[in-house]
Amino acid sequence: MTQYDTLRPVQWKDGQLRLLDQRRLPGAEQWLMIDAVDAVRDAIFTMVVRGAPAIGCTAAYGMAIATRKAPDDPTLFAEKIAADAQTLKDARPTAVNLAWAVDRVAGVIRARLGDGVDSAREAALAEAHAITEEDVQFCKDMGAHSLPFIPDGARLLTHCNAGALATGGYGTALGVARAAAEAGKLKMVYADETRPRQQGARLTAWELHHDGIPVTLISDTVAGSLMVRGEIDLVVVGSDRIAANGDVANKIGTYQVAILAAYHEIPFYVAAPLSTVDFETPTGDGIPIEERDGDEVAIIDGTRIVPEGVPCRNPAFDVTPHTLVKAIFTDKGVALAPFVESLAKLRDL
Amino acid sequence: MTQYDTLRPVQWKDGQLRLLDQRRLPGAEQWLMIDAVDAVRDAIFTMVVRGAPAIGCTAAYGMAIATRKAPDDPTLFAEKIAADAQTLKDARPTAVNLAWAVDRVAGVIRARLGDGVDSAREAALAEAHAITEEDVQFCKDMGAHSLPFIPDGARLLTHCNAGALATGGYGTALGVARAAAEAGKLKMVYADETRPRQQGARLTAWELHHDGIPVTLISDTVAGSLMVRGEIDLVVVGSDRIAANGDVANKIGTYQVAILAAYHEIPFYVAAPLSTVDFETPTGDGIPIEERDGDEVAIIDGTRIVPEGVPCRNPAFDVTPHTLVKAIFTDKGVALAPFVESLAKLRDL
Repeated sequence: MTQYDTLRPVQWKDGQLRLLDQRRLPGAEQWLMIDAVDAVRDAIFTMVVRGAPAIGCTAAYGMAIATRKAPDDPTLFAEKIAADAQTLKDARPTAVNLAWAVDRVAGVIRARLGDGVDSAREAALAEAHAITEEDVQFCKDMGAHSLPFIPDGARLLTHCNAGALATGGYGTALGVARAAAEAGKLKMVYADETRPRQQGARLTAWELHHDGIPVTLISDTVAGSLMVRGEIDLVVVGSDRIAANGDVANKIGTYQVAILAAYHEIPFYVAAPLSTVDFETPTGDGIPIEERDGDEVAIIDGTRIVPEGVPCRNPAFDVTPHTLVKAIFTDKGVALAPFVESLAKLRDL
Repeated sequence: MTQYDTLRPVQWKDGQLRLLDQRRLPGAEQWLMIDAVDAVRDAIFTMVVRGAPAIGCTAAYGMAIATRKAPDDPTLFAEKIAADAQTLKDARPTAVNLAWAVDRVAGVIRARLGDGVDSAREAALAEAHAITEEDVQFCKDMGAHSLPFIPDGARLLTHCNAGALATGGYGTALGVARAAAEAGKLKMVYADETRPRQQGARLTAWELHHDGIPVTLISDTVAGSLMVRGEIDLVVVGSDRIAANGDVANKIGTYQVAILAAYHEIPFYVAAPLSTVDFETPTGDGIPIEERDGDEVAIIDGTRIVPEGVPCRNPAFDVTPHTLVKAIFTDKGVALAPFVESLAKLRDL
């Protein structure tokens, strides 16, 4: 059985952080070798790496780099680590996994500093490895839990990129696709282009093609037509944040796809680690939606597609109400409606 | 009161067909001079001109050119005209106006051929002019008929370009917007980008901005989000072919927008001249859907956005079932459900 767990966008090699430069995909597969905290910060800020779990792994290695660059004197070491931790957290202050990963490595460093700075250095790197390996394992667990919901010969539609590139590896929504492919159940992944940033074309199509998984690209305008022709069996997407009631924030356009799926009686699934569920936020109304610069819509690869002076609206995310969600695949198991109960139950396992 | 009827994409000038090259918008306003039937066919096929009514006007002038190039011998003349008519009709399969316009000019040519080929030539050109002028007037009539359905301060969503650029002038769906603007009822037109060819960004935004009508561009992923926020009052689109029962073929993505409108209880209107109704086709199932080359999806302005080897599906149109259509604005009046009756009644007026 083919295993699709080889694509790792965040690696540690020859004592340095090795990152796949996702801004250059699909045209070039270029890897950056990074050996400084400021460079890690820049890589996150400029979206060399994106996807909340992948950012977390990157930041964890950033902390490992911090320990290697910090002075040997324990007091100066601790001061430098604290400053670098803040630098990393500030790269994208809204990404929850970023702060979580930095704090987790910082805790290990503090715990081991009593044994000397070299012990702390060793522990920091081990923790970064652990965070990344755990992330991959969570994705595989999610994929395994999803299998009973995947029909044979599945034609799966996804939106944006919730793949290996967005995680330590394997992916959330695309982890479901990989698990289905490994189980011999996958016929085709249809990837929505996902305007304005085209993550479906540039990232999802690239990573599935890279792994030899069948993928077909469609414009965001085409999903409904494929559905009415009976060419889509299920929809699987990732999530940036899930409210306690199961309302799902994800890339702009997800909400529409969920409505189209409901209209055509096609199941709409969300794949996300349980850490994506924000139990402090009761419903999707409490999830703030980032509005990004209109030039992301107006300009593609340097070419302006709309006249100067025409405004563009550019909300980056939307919220899909839980009523449109059939199930949420997590690393701990599958949540079904009512989600307010099933998600809490998985948390308390 | 401002009048918005100056933009004419299909012109006859100095004995030649003059077409605005819509592939170059919005970056450049370039006009092509055309003096051969094959060049007219190519202009339609390569989408120098697009939009069912504008294609009809262009094809009508193509027939006028055919008469000017055909031999003086009446038999050879008639043979050449028949062949050229077929060449023009084969340029694109979905739009009904293309065949309709060709047949209309062909009918006039046949009727006048008894008076000699020069008489037929004169009549063909006059008929092409008449088709174009009628088309502009029909658009204005459509706009006038739509006004009772337009609320004050209307925020209108449209898909693709059913504008002056898609017609002889003034536009169908954008004719409704122009009429609303002239009546002081229009607050904003939201233009779907309309991937893959981006007619919303490149054409609709261009022509409304050109006329000083307020327009905002959105990615195709955003319409549902604006609807759920209460920022869209109505949807108006054009059509390439309407079946006798009111099923509407239009640019890919229209069907999705209609579903989103229904989900949010927002009225979905179609604006099209009665000539767009194909009474020979009982339902949308009988409308052929053109599948175009996947490179239209994969390559934007010369830049490939998806890896080589990844297939792209590219249906150019879809069919919106009449059950999702609130009303059809025609030049003869407004058709309401049941459309099979109301459309036939307008035809028989």
